[in-house]
Amino acid sequence: MRKGITMVPGGVTTPGGITSPRGFQASGVAAGIKSDKRDMALLVSDTPAVIAGVFTTNRVQAAPVLLCRERLAARQARAIIINSGNANACTGTDGMRDARRMTQLTADLLQLAEPAVFVCSTGTIGRPLPMDKIEAGIRLAVKALAPAGAGAANAAGGADAATAIMTTDTKPKQIAAEVEIDGKLVTLGGMAKGAGMIHPNMATLLVFLTTDAAVEAVALQDCLATAVDRSFNRISVDGDRSTNDTVLFLANGAAQNATLDRRHPRWKAFCAAVNALTGELARQIVKDGEGATKLVTVTVRSAPGKRAAEKVARAVANSLLVKTSWFGADPNWGRVICAVGYAGVPVNPDQIDIAYNGQFAVRGGQPVGLAPEILHAIIAKPEFGIEIDLHLGRSTYTMTTCDCSDTYVHINASYMT
Amino acid sequence: MRKGITMVPGGVTTPGGITSPRGFQASGVAAGIKSDKRDMALLVSDTPAVIAGVFTTNRVQAAPVLLCRERLAARQARAIIINSGNANACTGTDGMRDARRMTQLTADLLQLAEPAVFVCSTGTIGRPLPMDKIEAGIRLAVKALAPAGAGAANAAGGADAATAIMTTDTKPKQIAAEVEIDGKLVTLGGMAKGAGMIHPNMATLLVFLTTDAAVEAVALQDCLATAVDRSFNRISVDGDRSTNDTVLFLANGAAQNATLDRRHPRWKAFCAAVNALTGELARQIVKDGEGATKLVTVTVRSAPGKRAAEKVARAVANSLLVKTSWFGADPNWGRVICAVGYAGVPVNPDQIDIAYNGQFAVRGGQPVGLAPEILHAIIAKPEFGIEIDLHLGRSTYTMTTCDCSDTYVHINASYMT
Repeated sequence: MRKGITMVPGGVTTPGGITSPRGFQASGVAAGIKSDKRDMALLVSDTPAVIAGVFTTNRVQAAPVLLCRERLAARQARAIIINSGNANACTGTDGMRDARRMTQLTADLLQLAEPAVFVCSTGTIGRPLPMDKIEAGIRLAVKALAPAGAGAANAAGGADAATAIMTTDTKPKQIAAEVEIDGKLVTLGGMAKGAGMIHPNMATLLVFLTTDAAVEAVALQDCLATAVDRSFNRISVDGDRSTNDTVLFLANGAAQNATLDRRHPRWKAFCAAVNALTGELARQIVKDGEGATKLVTVTVRSAPGKRAAEKVARAVANSLLVKTSWFGADPNWGRVICAVGYAGVPVNPDQIDIAYNGQFAVRGGQPVGLAPEILHAIIAKPEFGIEIDLHLGRSTYTMTTCDCSDTYVHINASYMT
Repeated sequence: MRKGITMVPGGVTTPGGITSPRGFQASGVAAGIKSDKRDMALLVSDTPAVIAGVFTTNRVQAAPVLLCRERLAARQARAIIINSGNANACTGTDGMRDARRMTQLTADLLQLAEPAVFVCSTGTIGRPLPMDKIEAGIRLAVKALAPAGAGAANAAGGADAATAIMTTDTKPKQIAAEVEIDGKLVTLGGMAKGAGMIHPNMATLLVFLTTDAAVEAVALQDCLATAVDRSFNRISVDGDRSTNDTVLFLANGAAQNATLDRRHPRWKAFCAAVNALTGELARQIVKDGEGATKLVTVTVRSAPGKRAAEKVARAVANSLLVKTSWFGADPNWGRVICAVGYAGVPVNPDQIDIAYNGQFAVRGGQPVGLAPEILHAIIAKPEFGIEIDLHLGRSTYTMTTCDCSDTYVHINASYMT
């Protein structure tokens, strides 16, 4: 881990999560939207927080996304109310009314101004929200909040929230990080829900980040945008973002540091902590991808430009034939070089090198005669890396991805019905 | 079927195939490249034929593709030798030597000029061709040719060839068509091997077409390019073509019509017959896609341009979440509208209509409340159509695709090893 940053793993019995920073409370309750599981989460800052947000680029955007975008303009927030089990997408004016009603009721119960409440939904598209259950759930979630400064009870609330936002995720995703700024200990926390097999599909990605640092609003937005580009966008969520993808980041200043911005000497240290947090959550998302059994990093080197490196990395990381061969622990580098060839970049086939965990399988576009057993042993590991060298320039790009198993098909053949 | 065109289905006992046109012979034999199955095919024209070809756009091209492209310049051919089980791709200068050797031996045995022999390979990438088996196979294939004008024996040769080019195909793909030109009966025949789940992947597509029509060379090339764009490219093979994709079309003039070109009054009728043939082969390929259980047409209407219509149709037809929901007979139109939203076209979500076999599920971006049982009954069919209306312009594009089943994953997790 980077120097000066202490990572605090999340979990039901460990404290790392959205309530690790001072002045945040959270809860997760079962409102009956999806049978008896937790399906509503609430995150509250004790004091007004600065908020930054990054949203799906899909042309079809769910009602809560539209509402969050609208409210983000003021850069101020106190609470986020979240439900899983229903995406409130393709629900028209009724959907907007329901999203507003969620924030209004939350604001009333917490005695906040309505525009300071944000809302996120994830689940099935095109069904009206069951507002009776949602409203009862909001009341439950407010009641379930631990009192401010409740310590362990507070941490449990964060873990409950991380569970409540799950859809096909098999485990909650949480992490916290600590970094010293102006002699103060600043804490950052985060939770996320995963996204189908991530790319090229569009099951929703939701990420919530908190910090007790005082941060200037525009700087916080820049920091978040960069962190998302280096993490969630490199697990390939961007090109095909869902109707609901949302990343929100609250900074409430409880650490009482001098407000951070680009000119602050510790700005880079703070951004590094944010990158560490989002990088770890991105990794947790890929590891828990639907049906995933392996985590694979695809690195393209010596590309003629960053965009070219990215195109090649995405083509390989998203190839269904490549992903299924990883599942089968099949050292089929032919599918990798084929994906390189169709990535839309003018590569020279006779210059391509391909290595697995540093072992060359292909040099100059041809197999080097590496024993299949060696390759097979690498691809059978739960984590490995593929390095592709194009010998065309100086740009590098890395994608983190997973394999595609029959479980993925089973999950997605019957998600709705 | 189109007026004036008679389609002749293929099969082991029926005559429709590459040897239906006069003056073509074919054979298919087992050379031991893939255990005991037929794995080498030979197609011969009794007289010099004009040849047209369309090849993969992948930057990584197999040796036989490079050789065919080189020889196509002369627009003259007598024979095509084909093997399955090994793609002769990423095999460097040795691969080129082996591809040339295949054409040289075929030419010697048939007493032809070597440049008049073309070669295609399909199978695993990056392994040297087993030339001992290949050479023995070529000798077998030449011996197995029926004598010219052998009738039924000739048809059997065509069927054997269609079987020999298969890889993961479960059945051979053949068809013939007849059309009258200048008072002569002109026959066209074709065989194909399928391509994985087709798009977005790259298992090889090989298609061989024959006709006894006399056709001018450049006109034949134009006709083939258009036919491929309307058929195989709309089952989405183009953007991600394999290292070996090849479509070759031989016209030997045995029907003794006045040579066809753009100015001939029956040019359109001939091209219509070619389109009918390629359309039917494309359909057979999708129906036999790896693990496919359903054939689905995705039609985008009222798009702001042809490219926009195509982008939206491809996004839907290639979405793994959409494909797996079809496999589960899950009426999950939310995944369809989500794919429309990320296609990269500035759609207006509030104007999108989606219908299944003409039954509207979505109008103006919202569900119309169609009973799930009705949708389910449509999606449970082996063939159905999805129509997406963007209400933005006048362009239409249709893709033919299939679902994605767990069988697909099983096939591709262990294809090589």
